[in-house]
Amino acid sequence: MNYIVVDLLGSDKGPSAILEGINIVLNEHSNLGVAIVGPIQEAKTFIKEHNIDESRIEYVDANDTVTNFDNPTECYFKKPDASIFQATKLLTSDKKYIGMITVGNSGAVLMSALRFAMTPEMTRPCIAAVLPNAQKGFTCLVDTGATIDCTKGQLLSFAKLGRDFMKYTYKIDNPRIGLLSNGAEKTKGNHLVKETYPLLEADESLNFVGNVEGNKALAGLCDVLVCDGFAGNQVLKNSEGMAVQIITEMMKYGKMTGKEAVCGEIAQYLMKTFDFESLGGGIVLGAAKPIMKCRGSSGKEAIRNVAHMLVNISLNKAVYEGEDERC
Amino acid sequence: MNYIVVDLLGSDKGPSAILEGINIVLNEHSNLGVAIVGPIQEAKTFIKEHNIDESRIEYVDANDTVTNFDNPTECYFKKPDASIFQATKLLTSDKKYIGMITVGNSGAVLMSALRFAMTPEMTRPCIAAVLPNAQKGFTCLVDTGATIDCTKGQLLSFAKLGRDFMKYTYKIDNPRIGLLSNGAEKTKGNHLVKETYPLLEADESLNFVGNVEGNKALAGLCDVLVCDGFAGNQVLKNSEGMAVQIITEMMKYGKMTGKEAVCGEIAQYLMKTFDFESLGGGIVLGAAKPIMKCRGSSGKEAIRNVAHMLVNISLNKAVYEGEDERC
Repeated sequence: MNYIVVDLLGSDKGPSAILEGINIVLNEHSNLGVAIVGPIQEAKTFIKEHNIDESRIEYVDANDTVTNFDNPTECYFKKPDASIFQATKLLTSDKKYIGMITVGNSGAVLMSALRFAMTPEMTRPCIAAVLPNAQKGFTCLVDTGATIDCTKGQLLSFAKLGRDFMKYTYKIDNPRIGLLSNGAEKTKGNHLVKETYPLLEADESLNFVGNVEGNKALAGLCDVLVCDGFAGNQVLKNSEGMAVQIITEMMKYGKMTGKEAVCGEIAQYLMKTFDFESLGGGIVLGAAKPIMKCRGSSGKEAIRNVAHMLVNISLNKAVYEGEDERC
Repeated sequence: MNYIVVDLLGSDKGPSAILEGINIVLNEHSNLGVAIVGPIQEAKTFIKEHNIDESRIEYVDANDTVTNFDNPTECYFKKPDASIFQATKLLTSDKKYIGMITVGNSGAVLMSALRFAMTPEMTRPCIAAVLPNAQKGFTCLVDTGATIDCTKGQLLSFAKLGRDFMKYTYKIDNPRIGLLSNGAEKTKGNHLVKETYPLLEADESLNFVGNVEGNKALAGLCDVLVCDGFAGNQVLKNSEGMAVQIITEMMKYGKMTGKEAVCGEIAQYLMKTFDFESLGGGIVLGAAKPIMKCRGSSGKEAIRNVAHMLVNISLNKAVYEGEDERC
């Protein structure tokens, strides 16, 4: 049986939201097991109460966690038994573990990947988000917040990781790579962008399409949008924040004008189209196995969705174990 | 008569869009004159064709311009007669010039302000944008792209410029200052943000409310949002890009379902609520006189709106000439 490893700690909603997500996953995938890493007692009670088949569950006890106030690098030394570290160690300990889900701190996720799940190439992993774009396609944003201050070499490496991910998982032949900047012209950018541009341009393995401005980030001009973790975090959160804000305003208008029904209907459609959450949170690229990083606020549906994505990726392992012959 | 100085070059739409804007402004403000800096011949033909009173117009001939491909600092030496430089020199040459409008390159606008319109305090100017927030108020974003790579000292100074602007122009008693980051916690941020946080926190003249995440940028948590020009440019453009994308998607839905009329009506409302353009583009803070920086794509209405804002600011000169007794 294949297992997914689930880190039970770090959720804003407590372990129960994650356990409820696991329950859905187990119901939907009858041939899948879950290795739960976290406070065992709470997990065991939940599994029993929900009549879940114990033979599909593994437990690893872990009660320590890396919080948003911690320094992730320090924690690696100070809290070596934190659930995120134990989960990542477990993930790479056996072939049967096909992937991992965590709602933990991004920095701790990166630290875990660096310490326990490096590929033979020893590339620095990044956390990507696959976002819906205006062309009814998807744009892979790298990095979204794992490495906040980046070097040009890291951005080049993120471009390649994003390219491979979109090629093998999304079946895009020659993914277009864009570089997030403050203007479309080659001359625009901060120091980092200006240094990175010639590297991306010179690399013949990349289909580099140049700088992409913030208002075009999700216009579908590129399949992979490269930026440092600080800027990527802004794009990710700002896009989502604006979507929420606009839909909220539309509902207010509906209430004001007595058009609640039609506004509600449009809101449903827009929420589905601009759904940043259900696409599965962030995915660690450049690690030996797929690791999904969900937000701290993720509910059971988000956990269910990323598990679904993990299973899909695992069936088409190209990104993680070299090109798949079936592609 | 008071004059506003208008730089005629740099528009994506050519000088005619700006001239049409000037025509509206002159019709709306009967006691205002305009000093046009740019290709005189085209301007004179327009003024004549539109029967505009010649006594309200001054002309300064300028045919050179700083393009988006130019390095603004180099241009100061290589193209000293570019319209933007001539316009800024004119602005500070006499009391009758109350402000300036340009659609030129942000870097060139900053360079002009630095060279020709510094205040006695010699603070580095920034370009602010005042954006509508979810609390039906406004958030002043500093910087939006004039200084792409910033120092912590510059961010501190931008915070103070933004504070004064919101205090005197928007009548907010003790403006709340937020620092754009990748997490709300004090520990989150890139190097620059982490260095800047303690400076803002320690300054007793600032009502610092801490880090603000990208999804809360326009939530109304702060009246002034401080960031470097690269990040600010992302917030500004990304917010606008998302608004356009969502409204476009809503119109598609209307077409698909035969609900064009109601979708069109909601779109109108949303475009008014999330109208980034008509609020007047960017405004240079920290210069001796107000300089409005419009986008290259600005149409006549945008020019009209920024002129209106310039006149308002000029009537309430607090920000530019010390606190106004009338406030």
